[in-house]
Amino acid sequence: MLLARVIGSVWTTQKEKGMENIKLLITQPLNAKREHQGNHVIAMDRLGAGVGELVLITQGLAAQKVAEEKRPPIDAAIVGIVDSFEVNE
Amino acid sequence: MLLARVIGSVWTTQKEKGMENIKLLITQPLNAKREHQGNHVIAMDRLGAGVGELVLITQGLAAQKVAEEKRPPIDAAIVGIVDSFEVNE
Amino acid sequence: MLLARVIGSVWTTQKEKGMENIKLLITQPLNAKREHQGNHVIAMDRLGAGVGELVLITQGLAAQKVAEEKRPPIDAAIVGIVDSFEVNE
Amino acid sequence: MLLARVIGSVWTTQKEKGMENIKLLITQPLNAKREHQGNHVIAMDRLGAGVGELVLITQGLAAQKVAEEKRPPIDAAIVGIVDSFEVNE
Amino acid sequence: MLLARVIGSVWTTQKEKGMENIKLLITQPLNAKREHQGNHVIAMDRLGAGVGELVLITQGLAAQKVAEEKRPPIDAAIVGIVDSFEVNE
Repeated sequence: MLLARVIGSVWTTQKEKGMENIKLLITQPLNAKREHQGNHVIAMDRLGAGVGELVLITQGLAAQKVAEEKRPPIDAAIVGIVDSFEVNE
Repeated sequence: MLLARVIGSVWTTQKEKGMENIKLLITQPLNAKREHQGNHVIAMDRLGAGVGELVLITQGLAAQKVAEEKRPPIDAAIVGIVDSFEVNE
Repeated sequence: MLLARVIGSVWTTQKEKGMENIKLLITQPLNAKREHQGNHVIAMDRLGAGVGELVLITQGLAAQKVAEEKRPPIDAAIVGIVDSFEVNE
Repeated sequence: MLLARVIGSVWTTQKEKGMENIKLLITQPLNAKREHQGNHVIAMDRLGAGVGELVLITQGLAAQKVAEEKRPPIDAAIVGIVDSFEVNE
Repeated sequence: MLLARVIGSVWTTQKEKGMENIKLLITQPLNAKREHQGNHVIAMDRLGAGVGELVLITQGLAAQKVAEEKRPPIDAAIVGIVDSFEVNE
């Protein structure tokens, strides 16, 4: 998974089947020093994450399994809102 | 998903089974500042996206599921045409 | 998918089950300006692509589905030979 | 797989179904010279790996199969704690 | 697939189910000029590849299919030992 910060939202009207009623957030992956790490990822959110919050993002086919019944054509999902993390390097 | 701008089209005559009648667009992934972010991606389009439009791209096996019945051997598909996005960093 | 140019061939004698009689080409991914974009990819070819030709490459598990009956342990396949492409940036 | 060093832990309260009772570690991928190689990866751990230990990380859908019965929506898992490695370059 | 050179071995005692009796090699991906290309990959080997040999590596879920009966939680496998390759750029 990636550690990321929610930085915004995306809206679409014309979309593929399965993408209806999906909340899509723009996230900035971070390293454990909270520095930017890699490219922006658009992720499905079902946890109610808000702008500024730290989240965990799962990528690839596993993301799709978050929306169990529907299997929307997504490749990234927020799977947790981060309470805290600790690093000892 | 990736945010990307449609920048062109690709045509093939000799192709693998399942690739017939698939519209393929060339896209430039962007970050939320609309700056180039990573390499060009060739994506299947079934939404009628045009050059210059912002789109959302799903990569990997989930992309294939967009073409439900046929499962073409693709690894990227446009899953939404972006109306707007908002960033608060 | 990636746009790429075929630049060579690879031969193996000792190989895993399912890799027999598979033609493997070395390809250089390109952007839409025909500049090098990313690392060399070794891809299965069933279309008869030749050195110098532009091709489309699918990566990941979808590549495997090109060889329908056999499912060789590959992660990249040529799915089309490019006739032309057009970019309006 | 990636060679990585465990550098910390992440805790979440709000999480997707299937993420309950999963231990998540922050890891720094390394090359065979023990130099940093690529971005931090958050991985599921079921082996009891501790901070400072070298581990092997599997990414993608195969990671999910580590938790056989549950299939949590993860994309990275620790599959081994490294005893030693040897390089002859 | 990636072209890579075998540069070493990794040993683990504590490991996930399915990782028993799997030979793990450290490989350095190369481009067709035999220059380093990307990060070290730890790959399963069932072909008896030795240090210094050139190999082809499959990544992702297809790698897992190399070990047909067992499906270990791996994401990279050696699928061929390279006899020769030819580039005409």
